[in-house]
Formats: sequence, C-alpha cells, structure tokens
Amino acid sequence: MFTQVERIKKDIEKLSEFNSTPGKGLTRFSFTKEDREAREYIKERMKEASLSVYEDPAGNIVGRRNGANNTPVVMIGSHFDSVKNGGNFDGVAGVVAGLEIARFLNEKNIKTKYSMEFIAMVEEEGGRFGGTLFGSRAMAGKVSKDELEHFRDKNGISVAEAMQKFGFDSANISKAYRDPKTLKAFFELHIEQGPLLEAEQKDVGIVNAIVGINWYEVEVIGRPDHAGTTPMNMRADALVLSSSVIQAVNSLAEESGEGAVATVGEMKVFPGATNIVPGNVLFTVDIRCQNANVIKDIARGINKILEEKCRNQGLSYKMVNKVSIPPVKLSEHLIRILTLKSKKMGLNYRQMVSGAGHDTMIMAKVTDAALVFVPSKNGRSHCPEEWTDYEQIQKGTELVLAAVLDIAEVL
Amino acid sequence: MFTQVERIKKDIEKLSEFNSTPGKGLTRFSFTKEDREAREYIKERMKEASLSVYEDPAGNIVGRRNGANNTPVVMIGSHFDSVKNGGNFDGVAGVVAGLEIARFLNEKNIKTKYSMEFIAMVEEEGGRFGGTLFGSRAMAGKVSKDELEHFRDKNGISVAEAMQKFGFDSANISKAYRDPKTLKAFFELHIEQGPLLEAEQKDVGIVNAIVGINWYEVEVIGRPDHAGTTPMNMRADALVLSSSVIQAVNSLAEESGEGAVATVGEMKVFPGATNIVPGNVLFTVDIRCQNANVIKDIARGINKILEEKCRNQGLSYKMVNKVSIPPVKLSEHLIRILTLKSKKMGLNYRQMVSGAGHDTMIMAKVTDAALVFVPSKNGRSHCPEEWTDYEQIQKGTELVLAAVLDIAEVL
Repeated sequence: MFTQVERIKKDIEKLSEFNSTPGKGLTRFSFTKEDREAREYIKERMKEASLSVYEDPAGNIVGRRNGANNTPVVMIGSHFDSVKNGGNFDGVAGVVAGLEIARFLNEKNIKTKYSMEFIAMVEEEGGRFGGTLFGSRAMAGKVSKDELEHFRDKNGISVAEAMQKFGFDSANISKAYRDPKTLKAFFELHIEQGPLLEAEQKDVGIVNAIVGINWYEVEVIGRPDHAGTTPMNMRADALVLSSSVIQAVNSLAEESGEGAVATVGEMKVFPGATNIVPGNVLFTVDIRCQNANVIKDIARGINKILEEKCRNQGLSYKMVNKVSIPPVKLSEHLIRILTLKSKKMGLNYRQMVSGAGHDTMIMAKVTDAALVFVPSKNGRSHCPEEWTDYEQIQKGTELVLAAVLDIAEVL
Repeated sequence: MFTQVERIKKDIEKLSEFNSTPGKGLTRFSFTKEDREAREYIKERMKEASLSVYEDPAGNIVGRRNGANNTPVVMIGSHFDSVKNGGNFDGVAGVVAGLEIARFLNEKNIKTKYSMEFIAMVEEEGGRFGGTLFGSRAMAGKVSKDELEHFRDKNGISVAEAMQKFGFDSANISKAYRDPKTLKAFFELHIEQGPLLEAEQKDVGIVNAIVGINWYEVEVIGRPDHAGTTPMNMRADALVLSSSVIQAVNSLAEESGEGAVATVGEMKVFPGATNIVPGNVLFTVDIRCQNANVIKDIARGINKILEEKCRNQGLSYKMVNKVSIPPVKLSEHLIRILTLKSKKMGLNYRQMVSGAGHDTMIMAKVTDAALVFVPSKNGRSHCPEEWTDYEQIQKGTELVLAAVLDIAEVL
C-alpha cells in the first residue's frame, strides 16, 4: 500500500468531532459552527499537503495542485456535510481519500501534466435547507437565485442569509460555475450505503450509472365509518385499498427487472382511531432505476391499480409526482480505467448501479465523472451505526489514486 | 302520536348549546361547565314532569316517578356526555326520549304498579377520562377505587378530583350500586350509529345482542434500509408485510359470517421517510361479533398469518390483546314485547346486533335490558354531521313508551 491507513483513520475520527449531536450520531449542517470547524481542519490538511487552498463562492473547499497545464483539471472529492444524526463516513470518506491522495503525491513529489483539485463539497445532503447537492450544482451552474431565498432551515433562515452570516456572498453564486472546457474529470469515493459489496465480499464497486428517482404522493379517499356498526360490505376503507396498492408497488418493482426498487416509506392514516374505519390514507412512493422507462412503467402500473381498485370499490385517489430525477450514465472511459486498475491491483471489484444520488451525478453533466464505492457494514448509512473499515477506505483510495495518475498523466 | 315532536326537537337543540366547541361539533365532557349546564336543564325538565330528582354518587341524574310499589323499578335512559367534536344525538336522543315519556305520563296522569326512573347517565363515552360507560358501571358496582385515581384527563386531573371539584364525593361511589332485586327493567333508546336502518328504510331496530369487542396492538419489526441502495430481495420491509396482514384482517372478517367486523384503524410507520424502507410498523386491530368464538377465530387467524409471514420473510412481530369485552345478549322477554308493539304500531322494524357498546350492555348485568335504535343519516356518528330526524326519534320514543307501560303495568 502506498497510502497510510492511520492518517485516513485519524482524519475521519477528527472530523467526527465537529458534530452538533455528540452521542447521537454525526450532525454537521452547512454554514454552522461545526461546518466552520471541519472546514478549518480540511483546509489545514490541504495546506500541509502543499495544496493552494481557496473556497469557491458556493462554499466548496478547493485545494489545488498545479500540473504542467493550468487547465483542464482533474478533480477528486466528495462532501463534508452530514444528515441529521448520521454517521462518520458518508461524504467524509471521499474527502479524506482526496486528502490522502494529495499527501501521497506531495510526499512522492509526483509531477503531472494536468492540474488537480481536491474538493470538499458543501450541503450535499440538504440536511439544513432541504436543497440537496448544493455544492456540486453550484459548480454545474444549476443553483437558482430563487432557491437561495426560498430554501430555509427550520429557523426560517434562507440559504442566502446563512451564507452571508458565514462570510460568503450568495450574489456571487454564479461564479462557482466551472466551464466544462476547464475540466478533465471528476472522481468521487463514497460509501455504498447498501448491502451488496459486503454480501458479495467485494473490495470496491465501480459505479456505471446512478439511478433516476421519481417520488409520488398518493392520497386514497374513502369514508370514515364506525368500526363496530358498519358492515364489511358497506365500507369504503381507505387503508384496506391502500394496503393492496402497497403490495402492488412491491411486486411491480420485483417483476420489472433492471434492479428497479420501489418503496412506500411514509404513510398516514386519518382519522387514525382504533374504532374508526380509515377515511383517508396518504402515502409516498419512491421508484428508482437506471432505466427511466422502467420507472415510468412502474408508476403507470401503480396508477392503473389505483384507478381500477378505486373505481370498483367506490373510492377516489390522487397521485402527484413530486420529484423526477433522470438516471445518469457515468463515463465509460473512466469505468474502463478503474476496472483495469482493479484487476491489476488484485482488488475484488464489481460494476454496479448507485441507488442513491451523489455529487458525481451532477458533475457528470460538466465533465467525465467516476464514482467508486467502498463497502458499508450491514448496508447501513445515515445513522450512528454507519461503518466502513479504514482498510476498505484505503483500498478504494488507492484505486482512485491509480486512475487519477493515469488521467492526470504523470510526467 | 301521543308524544310531541316539537318538545323532542326543542330539548335536543337546547342541549346542543351546552358545548365547549361551538361550530366544531358538540363536545360535552363530564364534570365540566357544559355538564353543569346540561345537568341543570335536564333536572328542570324532569321537575316540570313532576319527577322527584336526585343525582346518584356517580353523578348520574335520576328522575323518579312513584308507582304503587316502591321497588322493583323500571328505568328508562341514556347518557348526556359526548365525544370530542361529536354530534347532537348520540346519548341525548335517549335522554330526551325519557323526558318526553315522563311528560306524557304526567300529562295523562297515568298510574303504574311499578315505580319508574328516568336516567341521564354521566361519562358514557369516556371522552374526558378514557374510562367508558362510567355511570352505568357505577350502577352495576363495576367502578373500582383504583380507576377513580388512575384515569385522568389531559390536564392530569383524576376522576376523583374532578368529581370532588364538581360537588360529588367519589368515596361514596359504591353507593351508586343498584341491587338487582330493586330493578325490573332498563330501556335505552339510542341512535344506530350505522347505516343499516336507513339503507333498509326501517323505523326502528330492536337490538338482540351487543357485540363483543377485542382490541389488539400489533408491531411488525423489520429493518430500516436505504430505499435506493437496498435491492428488493434484501429487504425486511415492515410495511409490505403489514399491508398483507391488513388484507387478511379484512378477508377473515368478510368470510367469518355472523356479521363479524374487523378493522385496522390506526397505523404508524417508522422511521417514516420517503427514502427509507419501513423498519417498524404499529397498527391496531378491532374485532367485533355477537359470537365470542368468531372473534377468537379471527384473532387466531391474524396471529397465524403474522407468524407465517414473519417466519418466511425474516421479520418478527408482537400482537398484544388490549381490550376484551364479551358479547351481551339482551332480554328475550323485552325483545318479544318490543317486537309485538312494533307490529301493533305499524312500525317498520328489524332485529339487529349493536356493533357499538352502550350503557344497556352494562345494565343487562343487573336487570332485564332492552335497546331500541333509531336511524342515523348516512350511518354517521361521533361527528358534527350526526343526524336523526326528530320524527324518527319520536317513533322510537313511542315504541319504548308502549313497552314501558306494559312492563310497569298501568293501573
């Protein structure tokens, strides 16, 4: 191994201390005291690795390492914010992989043709303001002025106000945009957040696509009746109908193939009393697949079942599309290089689809982008139990390092 | 018609004014300002009908009309409290029927062999303290000292404290007990709270049994997973499993016959986020039937399905019995008299089972008890829309009057 696992461990442990909910998992929201502390720590480590450090107008941290050519640059990074009561690895693993790669290059005094930038993205989770992937969207020119004013935290503070107070002028947000001509590639290492790599005892996952995500809100409208005095055949029970739809959501995803998943994660029953037949049920549907047509087919299938069952049983429904994110294919060129390097390094690897969104998904719109997964213990994430062995992060880091050296062209 | 519909209408409208939630349905909790106002109104009407009025140690209002014999007495009544945001008829219809019968007997100067008592029961709904059928249970000697201390309203005030403040000494509660030897019969008129009488265009329902009620709380324990990164075949989705159990609850009741009903009325999904596979689901099951064995069979069926599905899919569950009230058969003698009188009066009647609990259920333990239903518009109750035409209440009142005169023996 060229990189040092102790330094990876130390960085991750140290960053876990910048946390507003100690003892209850990691909470590090953007433009807060904990953000400031983590930011200073990351900038210090970057400087130690001889990077020239700046913060872009969105609040992303950039540590630059000049190559023979000024542009295009090879970027390596992930995000340093967290969800509420999350874990120590989501995002941070990729930031620390970047720091370790920078240290390695510095120590070995490696010269490259292309300049490199090590990135710590801000507000990927949307934990504070609700708008996810903020830092990478700013780099891709996809943050609107409107969003800066309208997205607010639970205290009513807008993104613009929080940035101002923190020392960033949100009026300059458009200057965070990175012209695709100035970019050569973007690499991200991230924890899998799922069970596949662990179950198959793989070292790394080379992501070939990030799923599209459609969210729906469904309301089933029946009639609240007395649970004792209303015969079974005179009811319009919104929960009995909804429960048959949930069964259908599950089997439509199972039968559709292409790794599609569909989930009813939230459900509310009204009026919600033991002795009242449910009159209204609200539930969400989350559908994901690398193939947008499969998502559409599943949604159409759910709508058809709702329509048929409501018509036959005298109920009504609404199904509203709330989120619609198309799938993203990642760079075939970078996938090929990562695959070759994995073989050469003797890593147990597999290609896979990412079921979660990541900064890479956004960066893929402006440059060649690659995403490398490392295993998540028990598939858990966004919780205090989130864990990846440091040696596994090291293996992923070395794979990214090998690919980056290829793309940045060692002189 | 011997009774007067205008007086019935006026009493019900007047009692609806003693309401802590005007504009949002009727709310009249026990031992409150609204209870006091309604109580005074009912006592005044009783006195006008020449009844001797007293309040028993539980807070029930009793208006007595002496017959030739002091005991046993024929009782007529229902309750005058309400649920939160309920309607104007539940309980009150039966109290007012009693007032109108008393007025009729007084005006016609009818003498009876047996004494009569007109009753307005307190705290039947349990809206304030959670302990239902309080007034009738006190008469049957079924209120424990423990309950007086432990049942509390949302401000933490116990039944005992509320009674004390209102002017009743809860230490005397046992004196509310009515020795069965002193009772001849109990008659209650009540709104159906279901859709059957209206659907079949019946004037009255003669209740032959009150269902048994079993309540269960079910918890299904799966595993919360990321909705994007967890393949369908690696999930332990507590909601998908629960929704198949809800289907089974519904079909077990439909298939069991004997008019059994089973309802899942409350359901909570944890952690409850669009993008997280449900890890835990809590839901209630309410099963009712006039045949206790059918209730047991349905409960066993639900338990069996939970056991099988959890075992096959690697989840676990708990199913806890929270309430278990046996079914009650009402007096065949009184049913026969009510049936004969209905025929004679040309009423469209049917015998039926009551799917809801009523004071009659409790009084049946200490005396011959009868329950007469009048139609509920659209089957609705416990809501502001609750409605029964005053002419329908009058028809029910006249049926009770005819039966009461038979049992009390006109001299």
